[in-house]
Amino acid sequence: MATVLSVSGSPSPTSRTARLLRHLDTRLVDQGHQVVPLDVRTLSAQALLGADFGHPDIVRAAELFARADGVVIGTPVYKAAYSGLLKSLLDVLPQYALAGKTVLPLATGGSTAHVLAIDYALRPVLSSMGADHIVQGWFVLDRHITVGADDSVVLEPGTADSLGRIVDTFSEALAGRHRPLLAAAG
Amino acid sequence: MATVLSVSGSPSPTSRTARLLRHLDTRLVDQGHQVVPLDVRTLSAQALLGADFGHPDIVRAAELFARADGVVIGTPVYKAAYSGLLKSLLDVLPQYALAGKTVLPLATGGSTAHVLAIDYALRPVLSSMGADHIVQGWFVLDRHITVGADDSVVLEPGTADSLGRIVDTFSEALAGRHRPLLAAAG
Amino acid sequence: MATVLSVSGSPSPTSRTARLLRHLDTRLVDQGHQVVPLDVRTLSAQALLGADFGHPDIVRAAELFARADGVVIGTPVYKAAYSGLLKSLLDVLPQYALAGKTVLPLATGGSTAHVLAIDYALRPVLSSMGADHIVQGWFVLDRHITVGADDSVVLEPGTADSLGRIVDTFSEALAGRHRPLLAAAG
Amino acid sequence: MATVLSVSGSPSPTSRTARLLRHLDTRLVDQGHQVVPLDVRTLSAQALLGADFGHPDIVRAAELFARADGVVIGTPVYKAAYSGLLKSLLDVLPQYALAGKTVLPLATGGSTAHVLAIDYALRPVLSSMGADHIVQGWFVLDRHITVGADDSVVLEPGTADSLGRIVDTFSEALAGRHRPLLAAAG
Repeated sequence: MATVLSVSGSPSPTSRTARLLRHLDTRLVDQGHQVVPLDVRTLSAQALLGADFGHPDIVRAAELFARADGVVIGTPVYKAAYSGLLKSLLDVLPQYALAGKTVLPLATGGSTAHVLAIDYALRPVLSSMGADHIVQGWFVLDRHITVGADDSVVLEPGTADSLGRIVDTFSEALAGRHRPLLAAAG
Repeated sequence: MATVLSVSGSPSPTSRTARLLRHLDTRLVDQGHQVVPLDVRTLSAQALLGADFGHPDIVRAAELFARADGVVIGTPVYKAAYSGLLKSLLDVLPQYALAGKTVLPLATGGSTAHVLAIDYALRPVLSSMGADHIVQGWFVLDRHITVGADDSVVLEPGTADSLGRIVDTFSEALAGRHRPLLAAAG
Repeated sequence: MATVLSVSGSPSPTSRTARLLRHLDTRLVDQGHQVVPLDVRTLSAQALLGADFGHPDIVRAAELFARADGVVIGTPVYKAAYSGLLKSLLDVLPQYALAGKTVLPLATGGSTAHVLAIDYALRPVLSSMGADHIVQGWFVLDRHITVGADDSVVLEPGTADSLGRIVDTFSEALAGRHRPLLAAAG
Repeated sequence: MATVLSVSGSPSPTSRTARLLRHLDTRLVDQGHQVVPLDVRTLSAQALLGADFGHPDIVRAAELFARADGVVIGTPVYKAAYSGLLKSLLDVLPQYALAGKTVLPLATGGSTAHVLAIDYALRPVLSSMGADHIVQGWFVLDRHITVGADDSVVLEPGTADSLGRIVDTFSEALAGRHRPLLAAAG
């Protein structure tokens, strides 16, 4: 079992990105992981943009990253890249806040024309933060995410299959990360 | 004469990025341009991160972009890319807020290892916003910017020369942009 | 009138990229420019990959770049980036072979998922070569290019319109580049 | 024990990149891996640039990738990115030639200003080829690599330490990759 921090970088209170992450969280929980959701928009905007490292919200967010074995990073694609909201959180974390961690990058957007934003924009930032293993990410078209009246999420079948495989690969990578510790314990 | 919006994306109130931009503004003014400084950190953090498009700060910022012929974009490099603060402003502007405009990208940082962040991270975002002409940018090492007691800025001589040429090229590109209008008026 | 070098970086002898460029060349000629086509695949492969700077093919290619006012760079997208063939030519050119030049980047590919390869992969390379003005590029889907029995090219109407505007913008940028010289001559 | 393909993408017959890789190969061999060196410049240039997938050199290179558990990819940085020679090899490999593999990206260059080329240029290409795990790469300054009269390589001490750690991390990632198979066998 691993501890997974699941971070949504969407500024919208009715975000497809956030709902998608919460939907995937259940799959990770089913696989035995402990999942901690983090919605960046609930943190103090003033603290994030003012680089107020001592603010309780920032201190707590940094602790959540420090404790996590794995991190899911979800962002909408705006202007061909990750959201400013997500980046403002990453900016106030320690330089190597992802050291030793397994990371799953996910993005949502209105057009497949933005698919490469994960690998060309987001992944280099995550790599600069010392991430140990950034697994293959996935780009989800907004229209493949249907949100029900009860906030439940239904994914277009092909997308659901792909995301299932992506999450399982992330889960296996997390398990691989823990094996040396178990072996050492044995 | 052109109208230039000079945007600093540093979260720090004693930012080298902001002071560098104000220093370069004087050169642009000397060349006959009207320069409007915009320090993103003075805008409402809540409005920026909450994507509150109707907030007076956001409306005013969008108008400043709309009126500008040229835009100087300055950012510190954090985590191998532009600041989240800068991106949070770009995110709330119209998709093509840079259409028809001449743009000068500048970055500051502690190590030359981050030089390519301008071309690989910032420029694609500016291009996605429809920028007409993004001139060659420049990366300035923090230690080459000395801030005096009176907030005056002294640049290391080689950096001063390079930045002078960069600003002049931007100024010429702005002038070229206006020539067709003048010709048509004649 | 400007001199435009129109470079195809496709390895295929029946390349859609090359035919697209030849098709656009005629529009540039109609606008009064002199267009010089360069098909990288016709240069010596041994000289390109062996970095044989003194080989006649490389010397001639470097001269064509030196003489050009504008350069059209066309490449298929392979593995999320420009072709190795195109890059092998750029590698043997002087570091600032694009200094003072206006550049139009174009890419072709089978999926819109590769659109961002122009701005994230190709543009930074062109920028590192000192390009003065890299205008907005365009990504063309392979299936929007139909090649007739006589090698004539028919573009899907929407693509034809977009490419027409892109080429016209490039042409205007080339003209702007020349105006100062004319003004000085006057 | 894993099979590691160690690929040099330098066009130079006296390449620092190639010698650096051969130097690191010995460390991988000492750790029990079988290392297969591949110098892209020894493959047929005509086949690489002509996309001649059936050429024996290309068929053999594709087989070496298929058999490898891990791949070291070394390239000089030219024009702010990987070499055209390296990309011309990647272009003729299957789209997912790196699926299931652990990859170590390394670059050499004359200036630290090119450090980010690994994460912004090379890594997205490797990711598009389905790489399972691209470990943290390393950029080595040319002047930190001294080649002796007998072709032996001496690294600047700080670089030697960093590269040692990088190679060890790659080696551990390779081992982690194999553990599931061993566990299954048990």
